[in-house]
Amino acid sequence: MNNSLLEQGNFTLPGEAGYEDLTLELAERWGADAIRDSDGTVLSDRIITAGFDIYSTLCLIRADNEWAKANQDKLQQNYLMSYPVVANSDTVRIDLLNGYFREQFKVNVNDNPQTWWQVFDRTSGQEIPADQWEFDPNTGMVTITRVEKWHKYTVNFLAYRIWEAISMYNHITNNWGDREHLMPVDPIYPQTQEFMLGFLEKWLADHPRTEIVRFTSMFYNFAWFWGDSPNLRYIYSDWGAYDNTVSPYALREFSKTRGYTLTSEDFVNGGAYCSSHQVPSARYLAWLDFTNDFVVTFGRQCIDLVHRAGKEAYMFYDDHWVGTEPYGDRFKDFSFDGMIKCVFNGFEARLCAGVQGVKTRELRLHPYLFPTGLKGEPTFKTGGDPTRDARNFWVNIRRGLLRESVDRIGLGGYLHLVRDYPDFVDYIEELVGEFRTLREICQNDKPYTAPFKVVVLTAWGKLRSWICNGHFIHGLELNELIESLSGLPVDVEFMNFDDILEKGIPAEVKVIINSGRAATSWGGGEHWKNDKVIAAITGWVAQGGGFIGVGEPSACEHKGQYFQLSHLLGVDRANARSLSKEKFVYPKPDGQHFIMADVEGELDFGEDVGNIFVLGDNTRVLADKAGSPRVAVHSFYQGRSVYFSGFKFTLPNTRLLHRAIFWAAGVDHDFDYWTCSNVFTECAYYPQSKKLVVINNIDKPETTKVFDAHKQGIEVSVAPLGIEIIQL
Amino acid sequence: MNNSLLEQGNFTLPGEAGYEDLTLELAERWGADAIRDSDGTVLSDRIITAGFDIYSTLCLIRADNEWAKANQDKLQQNYLMSYPVVANSDTVRIDLLNGYFREQFKVNVNDNPQTWWQVFDRTSGQEIPADQWEFDPNTGMVTITRVEKWHKYTVNFLAYRIWEAISMYNHITNNWGDREHLMPVDPIYPQTQEFMLGFLEKWLADHPRTEIVRFTSMFYNFAWFWGDSPNLRYIYSDWGAYDNTVSPYALREFSKTRGYTLTSEDFVNGGAYCSSHQVPSARYLAWLDFTNDFVVTFGRQCIDLVHRAGKEAYMFYDDHWVGTEPYGDRFKDFSFDGMIKCVFNGFEARLCAGVQGVKTRELRLHPYLFPTGLKGEPTFKTGGDPTRDARNFWVNIRRGLLRESVDRIGLGGYLHLVRDYPDFVDYIEELVGEFRTLREICQNDKPYTAPFKVVVLTAWGKLRSWICNGHFIHGLELNELIESLSGLPVDVEFMNFDDILEKGIPAEVKVIINSGRAATSWGGGEHWKNDKVIAAITGWVAQGGGFIGVGEPSACEHKGQYFQLSHLLGVDRANARSLSKEKFVYPKPDGQHFIMADVEGELDFGEDVGNIFVLGDNTRVLADKAGSPRVAVHSFYQGRSVYFSGFKFTLPNTRLLHRAIFWAAGVDHDFDYWTCSNVFTECAYYPQSKKLVVINNIDKPETTKVFDAHKQGIEVSVAPLGIEIIQL
Repeated sequence: MNNSLLEQGNFTLPGEAGYEDLTLELAERWGADAIRDSDGTVLSDRIITAGFDIYSTLCLIRADNEWAKANQDKLQQNYLMSYPVVANSDTVRIDLLNGYFREQFKVNVNDNPQTWWQVFDRTSGQEIPADQWEFDPNTGMVTITRVEKWHKYTVNFLAYRIWEAISMYNHITNNWGDREHLMPVDPIYPQTQEFMLGFLEKWLADHPRTEIVRFTSMFYNFAWFWGDSPNLRYIYSDWGAYDNTVSPYALREFSKTRGYTLTSEDFVNGGAYCSSHQVPSARYLAWLDFTNDFVVTFGRQCIDLVHRAGKEAYMFYDDHWVGTEPYGDRFKDFSFDGMIKCVFNGFEARLCAGVQGVKTRELRLHPYLFPTGLKGEPTFKTGGDPTRDARNFWVNIRRGLLRESVDRIGLGGYLHLVRDYPDFVDYIEELVGEFRTLREICQNDKPYTAPFKVVVLTAWGKLRSWICNGHFIHGLELNELIESLSGLPVDVEFMNFDDILEKGIPAEVKVIINSGRAATSWGGGEHWKNDKVIAAITGWVAQGGGFIGVGEPSACEHKGQYFQLSHLLGVDRANARSLSKEKFVYPKPDGQHFIMADVEGELDFGEDVGNIFVLGDNTRVLADKAGSPRVAVHSFYQGRSVYFSGFKFTLPNTRLLHRAIFWAAGVDHDFDYWTCSNVFTECAYYPQSKKLVVINNIDKPETTKVFDAHKQGIEVSVAPLGIEIIQL
Repeated sequence: MNNSLLEQGNFTLPGEAGYEDLTLELAERWGADAIRDSDGTVLSDRIITAGFDIYSTLCLIRADNEWAKANQDKLQQNYLMSYPVVANSDTVRIDLLNGYFREQFKVNVNDNPQTWWQVFDRTSGQEIPADQWEFDPNTGMVTITRVEKWHKYTVNFLAYRIWEAISMYNHITNNWGDREHLMPVDPIYPQTQEFMLGFLEKWLADHPRTEIVRFTSMFYNFAWFWGDSPNLRYIYSDWGAYDNTVSPYALREFSKTRGYTLTSEDFVNGGAYCSSHQVPSARYLAWLDFTNDFVVTFGRQCIDLVHRAGKEAYMFYDDHWVGTEPYGDRFKDFSFDGMIKCVFNGFEARLCAGVQGVKTRELRLHPYLFPTGLKGEPTFKTGGDPTRDARNFWVNIRRGLLRESVDRIGLGGYLHLVRDYPDFVDYIEELVGEFRTLREICQNDKPYTAPFKVVVLTAWGKLRSWICNGHFIHGLELNELIESLSGLPVDVEFMNFDDILEKGIPAEVKVIINSGRAATSWGGGEHWKNDKVIAAITGWVAQGGGFIGVGEPSACEHKGQYFQLSHLLGVDRANARSLSKEKFVYPKPDGQHFIMADVEGELDFGEDVGNIFVLGDNTRVLADKAGSPRVAVHSFYQGRSVYFSGFKFTLPNTRLLHRAIFWAAGVDHDFDYWTCSNVFTECAYYPQSKKLVVINNIDKPETTKVFDAHKQGIEVSVAPLGIEIIQL
């Protein structure tokens, strides 16, 4: 295989001033056609003029700290909830920032607290009237009077962020010492917009050699609240949350356009904030929509300037991505030229590949060239093994790329760190070659795919297609499941409950998957109380649809039921209400079923759900543990359902899911086309080029039969983590 | 020790006609002073006249099947919910008894269904108006018209019970073949009362040799709904539930006295019925009170007849005990002479010992002389080992008796079964001797007990003192915990939330324990939303009280918190709302703490609760698993709290609980008085007789130091499961 790998192009190299020889040597070695800078590095003239496309990163909201310092009333804000304080008399004093990282936050003393803040008795749930509390800007304390002794009190208050979170993270991780703290400014104000557009115009003029402006990203970072204690450095972090978009100005604008007013508690939500794991309320979704409208509108003005300067604009799909919503209807209106996503996994590759409205999609691979990984684990330092990491990430990403490719890949960070890792340099050379070869095959060709669609049903739907809440959350059933799905030969669509009610279930859909725990956005939570949802899905299954439920599908304590679709699934989960109920005794599972055909040994679903019981004779349990079904199937009129007690991304489980999808769809007889007999291998057949690509997903040599369009087996051997391309 | 065991008295033997020699031989051998019959056995004249007190069992509600057959409109009833049926058109037909055991239930066709039943759309939650459904008494079907397609429908209907549950169980277990099925009649009707009193008078006259009428018990059995399928024989069983007390007559009487009307749904509760594990509603508690009032009033009339006949009346604290409420305020009004409780465990011994208003308390030991145990496991048949069972039960019961003794013990069942088990006969002889010896020491003496009270706080409070829901429910934290408590040298009181609000926390209380999962009566459920409860407990702890929380103490999702007393406990449990929150990093537990002093190796709390996080520096984690605290301590002003992630009755855990109680009470310095150094042994010191009793709770010889009133250690060796009595 290696001999045929393509050697040039589609690769972005992070350059580094001071290491010009290394930069140019690796650009040659890895076949780069573009060189970028990173947060903390710059490119020198020698690099810029070496004949490569130049990507320059630009984060407008932290780009000019002088302006930020001079306009501190324009810094970005968010609501914080003070830590609860229990009253031990009729007066309570709360130090608002107690527990929070005071280098990140500063209480907003410019906007009237009595107008914009709220104080709550969290024991009774009552809001405290504004005349019962007072804020002292000198001490940062709120004093609440006439309180109930031994009740718990909190203050929702506005804080400016005085250190931009990503540069704060980089600063602290890399010990940048007394380098100035960058502050994030808020583009919601006309003055900030005027400044930013002026800054951008000048910047564009100052960077004549830059072909591509890589925006990092637009304006609002995902929520990341830091703590004061070294034992609680990160208090709250949510990749999809809009906490950082709030300001009195924006809230007033919202009221004007929507006709109603949001309160601090709409964001603080009892201290849970509006994390992506919770079912978004209609009010919160309206705020997302309002913010997205603003970000696209002003973002477009920035991108227009870039285009007028003869450059292209790419967006980095992380960091300050909040408000851009690449899967929203307005995203195309930005007129971005490219999208760059940093990825570890297959689902993230699909997330990037599936974005509409850009012509170039690029993956920023991991490991980032940085001493430590995202969780502080060593990478390019003692104890790290960046080559192993790169291989592990790539093998999963490649699964996704086989189904839907992207245009480019790249790296980021501090290039000089690779000098001590020659095997990493070798491996990246191989990896980039493999990518180029795959890309050439995939371009303008769609591999064989099952002739029906699979819907993943969540409270978020399309807006959070191919992602839950940032990078892989291990143990979150839906995240595990979409990682498996990312490499399966099925078309996947993400829908929410409104979609089902408003548009119905599209005719090409044969399977709906609902995966998650009760009260989460992934499961659907309160949406399952809607009888119209139940009737729509029930009727659709009765007419031949397939339903796959994972963990606590359709779970919501309501009207005496827990799994609201128990009549489809044939199982439900016991809870406090059913402690006096006995469980139906089902026959011992014998594993003899189409979907279990490739299962060997005990299933590994991670921390799956117990206390499942079957409703009666019509439920067939295919696997169980301690008397609780783990895999069960059930028919309902013309339709079929499958229950999994959990899910974990493993190759055998991926096969189990693949089979479950085909069985639920009622097309198990068509399963064999273009599948591998060996679950550690996967294949994709590209009909235009008549090329069959077979990948080995484990670090051992494997042999497999690939069943073709006539279900005839073709024997293929693949090297450890290798790839075979066969011309048919 | 054996030599000093007392040989005679305080023991009730089950006699059996046809086995007179065996009966009299064992009466002699085991030192019986009383002989009883059992369900399925009778006593012959030779036994009756042999000079023993005679206990005769009497279950009035199934005593005369002829009367029952002639008065089938007076049979006992209950509400059932039909199994849900999903509509596949605009009409649904429901076979009401489908899934239920038709030999147990018969639909009530005498009372107007449209008045007494309810039909629900369980998908929307709406009740279906009476004019939209019709019951056909010939088919037992309800037809519902104008329904929503694909919604789920159920009918709450009244069913007569045509086979009394306990005799049904005995009948089926013992293959009684075509012996007539006994039917339970309802004493709520004046005609039934008249019949019963007449029957009882005649019965008393017909049983001149009977000294003690053992009522089994009063009128209403605990709920036990059987299923049609051999795979779901028992659908619903709840030892404490009042389902079987319902009838239109009683419901009308209730309305008259209470001024409001209960509906079928008050009992059916969406199909969960009102199981004891759920927090009882005010309406349900009113029903308990109404029923209890009736049962005591009419029960007293029966007992008066017994007394007039010169006999005594004992109550069996099982089977038809519902409505008697031995821990209720009215129980003394029955004027029962004795109470008999069948027991496996220490907590049940305490349950019996603690009943007020009777002069004799008797334990009916297990195993029952029956081929199988309560769960169908072999006892007196191949595969069974009744001696092992008897020893295992006794060792736990003995712990309870050391704290609070009873007057008598006894056995029940078919005596002839012991013939093949000579070691059982030997062991019972030893056991009875041990009981007599202990009883003599305990009588009129109270062993050394900590000088403060411990409150167990549940939604039931005193009414369910020393019991959860019948025999030991393994895995239910509170049941595990009260089994440990039953043998500890502390005074225990059970309180509910109203007690705390109405009476306050008594001055002698130093520790409150709350143990259970969210949404259960044991944990407290919605009561934790009451800010007055929170303030009362918080204030009490602040002033020096101790709080011990187990599992999910004070758990209830409310106003952004989960553990409502997290400010006392210093921990909370993460849930869907906190998935984006980071956990505070606590120091690695080193086990150096007073309450951990006797812990060796990994804690075994059974299936305990994970995802616990600590609130901050002030919480000290003493043990953890996978990053989730299992034991944590926290101070709040003058008070202390202890958190356990679960509880399982083991001897080391019993010691852990003992220490936790003393530490939470702030009297850890007083722990040593009359405790054993060896956790497998326990002791009780009786000050009047100056006797020290030391028991060995495991089947190995053990040596322990017992610390006396001067904390001086006395070395004692005890045989496996043995007992040592030391005169000081």
